[in-house]
Amino acid sequence: MRRAIVGRVAALALASLPACTSSASAYRDKDQSDAMEAVLRTQESAWNHGDLERFVSEGYLNSPSLTFFSGGDVSRGFDHLLERYRKRYQEDGREMGHLSFTDLETLLLDPSSGIVRGRWRLEFVKEPAIGGLFTLVMQRTSDGWRIVHDHTSIAAKTGS
Amino acid sequence: MRRAIVGRVAALALASLPACTSSASAYRDKDQSDAMEAVLRTQESAWNHGDLERFVSEGYLNSPSLTFFSGGDVSRGFDHLLERYRKRYQEDGREMGHLSFTDLETLLLDPSSGIVRGRWRLEFVKEPAIGGLFTLVMQRTSDGWRIVHDHTSIAAKTGS
Repeated sequence: MRRAIVGRVAALALASLPACTSSASAYRDKDQSDAMEAVLRTQESAWNHGDLERFVSEGYLNSPSLTFFSGGDVSRGFDHLLERYRKRYQEDGREMGHLSFTDLETLLLDPSSGIVRGRWRLEFVKEPAIGGLFTLVMQRTSDGWRIVHDHTSIAAKTGS
Repeated sequence: MRRAIVGRVAALALASLPACTSSASAYRDKDQSDAMEAVLRTQESAWNHGDLERFVSEGYLNSPSLTFFSGGDVSRGFDHLLERYRKRYQEDGREMGHLSFTDLETLLLDPSSGIVRGRWRLEFVKEPAIGGLFTLVMQRTSDGWRIVHDHTSIAAKTGS
């Protein structure tokens, strides 16, 4: 509880001292980080060409173990995810919109697993834009890097 | 685009065929999965004893590289996270509430990294309960397992 008596000003002053910090092992490999990001660029392109099947199949692991978290909802399995996207963005003449991923940050955990974090934004012709943050857990498979877990959240306000 | 012409009934029928799925390497070690979950149980206990410093210090990596995603907001660094929690749950006599983590699922990616996913719920005396989902990326350090990235989202409705 010693920390509790440290005032905010002191805490902020201490925040930049390296001695206060711990480290965790980080694995670096620019080629693999680039390969992970490339999957997202492929997804972006697929979405913006209206190709939902390619967006899903080149991004996500085709497995029942795939998980997708959004708000309070959990979806499981590749096929269920594809259905979810179809219902939300293709049924009844709905607009898929224009997708962009920005502020991408990769964290390789080992040679075959890592995370990619960033912001997503979907712009529509008829509706206001939506957007927010995502965290993707990716694993390297024989088909390349694939998302095994997706946690996506929506910002309260996304701007115009 | 061949998939696009497969009707929904057929797609659902195919969903259970193992031949449709890919696999990614999974690392299993019950002791380490249990150790990751134990960090969350320690956090739960610390929170419910009003010990925010312990909640943060025994859960999160004490590093400026720590990231916390929530809705559309990004926080960086251990000290900033602690401040964020203090402002939100301790300033001006605010209630910390009673915290519970449920539906925990761990995924070890290698001997020293993995994710824990699940639901969180905070019950208050004076306010309606809030809750949602979280994805924690954890790494094993000399102090034990610590969260290096937290993505937390709030459900639109959490029930009473």
